[in-house]
Order: sequence, then C-alpha cells, then structure tokens
Amino acid sequence: MTYYTISDIESWERFYRANFINSLTGFKSVNLIGTINTASRINLGIFSSIVHIGSNPPLIGYINRPVKTAPHTLANIKATGVYTINHIHPSFVQQAHQTSAKYEAGISEFEEVGLTPEFHENIAAPFVKESNIKYALSLQEIIPIKLNDTFLVIGKVISIHIEKDIVSEDGFIHLDKVNSICSNGVDGYYTAELIARFKYAKPGIKPQKIK
Amino acid sequence: MTYYTISDIESWERFYRANFINSLTGFKSVNLIGTINTASRINLGIFSSIVHIGSNPPLIGYINRPVKTAPHTLANIKATGVYTINHIHPSFVQQAHQTSAKYEAGISEFEEVGLTPEFHENIAAPFVKESNIKYALSLQEIIPIKLNDTFLVIGKVISIHIEKDIVSEDGFIHLDKVNSICSNGVDGYYTAELIARFKYAKPGIKPQKIK
Repeated sequence: MTYYTISDIESWERFYRANFINSLTGFKSVNLIGTINTASRINLGIFSSIVHIGSNPPLIGYINRPVKTAPHTLANIKATGVYTINHIHPSFVQQAHQTSAKYEAGISEFEEVGLTPEFHENIAAPFVKESNIKYALSLQEIIPIKLNDTFLVIGKVISIHIEKDIVSEDGFIHLDKVNSICSNGVDGYYTAELIARFKYAKPGIKPQKIK
Repeated sequence: MTYYTISDIESWERFYRANFINSLTGFKSVNLIGTINTASRINLGIFSSIVHIGSNPPLIGYINRPVKTAPHTLANIKATGVYTINHIHPSFVQQAHQTSAKYEAGISEFEEVGLTPEFHENIAAPFVKESNIKYALSLQEIIPIKLNDTFLVIGKVISIHIEKDIVSEDGFIHLDKVNSICSNGVDGYYTAELIARFKYAKPGIKPQKIK
C-alpha cells in the first residue's frame, strides 16, 4: 500500500487531485437534474453528489458547486422551487456526460445533447423521457457550506415515475434491471451487478442473505 | 411507467417506504467508518451516504442519522476529531453489513464481526486492515439538518492508503480493479463494471472516450 499525507495531496497538480479525490469517495449515484427558469427555459445538468437524507419525509440532497462555476441549476431551483432527478442508463450515457459542458444560460442542454424533455402533471420542471426512474422534488432548504462555498440542496420527493415491475414486494428497487448507472471520479461511468441483499442485522446473529 | 404522488409515498408502510426511497437515489458509495472514543474503545459502522464536497481542500461529507438512532460514530468523531473511511470489497461484505447491528456503546464491531483494526502514523482512529482503499479525515464541521434531525459531517482528508497500481497517470482510481463495492437501498450490495470514461465536455464537441 502507498501512503499519502495531506502535504502530498496539496502538492498535486489540480486535475490530478480532482480525479483522485473524486474517485476516493467510491462509486457514486449519477443523475440528470432537470430545471426550468421563470422565462420557461429548461436546463439539464449531470450531478454525482445525490445523497439520501431521510425516508420519512422523503428527503434527498445534492451538493451544488460554488455559484460561479455551476450557476444555472441552482438559480432555477431557487426561482421555481421545483426540480427533477432522472436516472441515467447506458443507452444515453454520452449525452448525459455532454450536459456537463459549459453552455450559456438559457441554452437547453436537452436540445444540445439530444435528450427529450417531458412534462407531467403540475410539475413545472422537465423530466428526461429516456430515463426509466425519475422523480420530482420540492425545494426544502439550501444549506451553505462555508468551508468551500458549496451548497447542500435538499428537496422533498413529490412524485415518482418508475417501471413497476422492478420494485420488489418490500419496496426495494432493482436498479440493475433497468441498468441505472453509477459513476467514479469526474468522468467514469459504470453498470452494477448484485452481490447479495442481507437481512436486517442483529447483534450475535450471522448475516443472512435475502433470497 | 407507474406514477406515485407524495400522498402515495406517505401512505406506504414504514419499511416499504424506507426500502423504496433509499433505492430511489441510485447506487451509492458504501464504506466503513472507523472511530475511537476518549477511553480508546474503537467503533466501526457502515455508511452509504458518503458525498464528495470538494477536492481543494479535499473535503468529504456523510449524513449521520438522528443521534437517537445512530449515536456512537458521531459521538466519537466529536470527541476525538478524527475518523477513517474504508472501502468495502466482496470478500468482507457480510462482515461490513453486520456492523449495522445495534451493538452497545463501547463494543468493538471489529471484534464482533471479524474485521481487523490497524493503526497508522499518528491517526488515533482505526483503519480496516482488509480494505484496499482507506483514508483518514480531520473533522471540519458538523452541520445540523433541522428538517429531519440529521447531520452533514464534513472532514478533510489528511492521509490516504491505497494500492498504487490502481491509480492512473491522471489521478483517476480504478475502483473496479480492487472490487470496491457500492450499495442500493438499505441492504443491497453490488460490484461495478466500467462502461467508459469521457473527456472533459465542451459545447458543440461530441463526447469522446478516454482510451
């Protein structure tokens, strides 16, 4: 094993460090966030910092980088209070990655990269038609992280669109059955394969697989 | 596609909802967090809410559930200011899952589940010997999330232990080469397989694979 200290990390070239530290956190959920501004212009961006905050109420967070480097999604969420999170599948991973290019405000990444916006019920923000698992959130709180000028954006799930036959009787979603992907670092995309599910763990009882 | 509203979600049985909402966020980084208390008793817990906050400085966060349901790790981190995050591999996924059982304070999950603590340099918190990627963090900030009494715990990476030959020339870590796993929901564990890496995206240029 090789050992690095904080001095080593600080001495690394900027992109080397970004690749390394972004990989260090392990495989990540990677999704497309769909938003709309008050002039009805739609926006789509790729985010790999989605994090589960709680199930009751159903709260999901993501980290938004500093406003200067990643302004559009956050501005739209602030303005309209609603956004969508859409799973990515291998069939459109290239298009999803391309949304990370720095398009001007008001440009629709949907159109630029070739993904299809769709609208449901009274949700103003666009969903991604090509996605098999997608949900809308109502903004609850934007928590500033002063350490590095980022933000924890927390929303409450208000509607879900999903293929019903991938949901188990106990609520577990077989993400692998629709090939939802995950990511590593800033630019690596992966499919995932089930090792096992295990029953609720209790002290003194050996872990048991869920059949 | 099936459509669920917030009313549906709120009507679900508690465990069904927890399984569903925990899967909805997609594949997650799953890791073991090692801590120590002021009486030198060590603790190990599994967490699937690790999130990249920034690379410069190298900041990594995780969500700690309400203190009542998940007290030990957070108390130790508060007391000593240092903790380790250790990747999980298929060879010890059962042991890793078993750390989620509710052991009493002061009980070492290392001993209970059969994993090996190891100590490096002047880091007080234990690493997991069996893990091929592990790093220590110095606590920077605990941000309360008032919406549901959880906490965003942010640490700065201060040392890293890793197999050198899985790190690319550009800093990207080939997590699949040491079989770091990811998780889905509260109890599903997965291996991941590379689809592709893509070059830095620019408007008007088609996404290109990194060879």
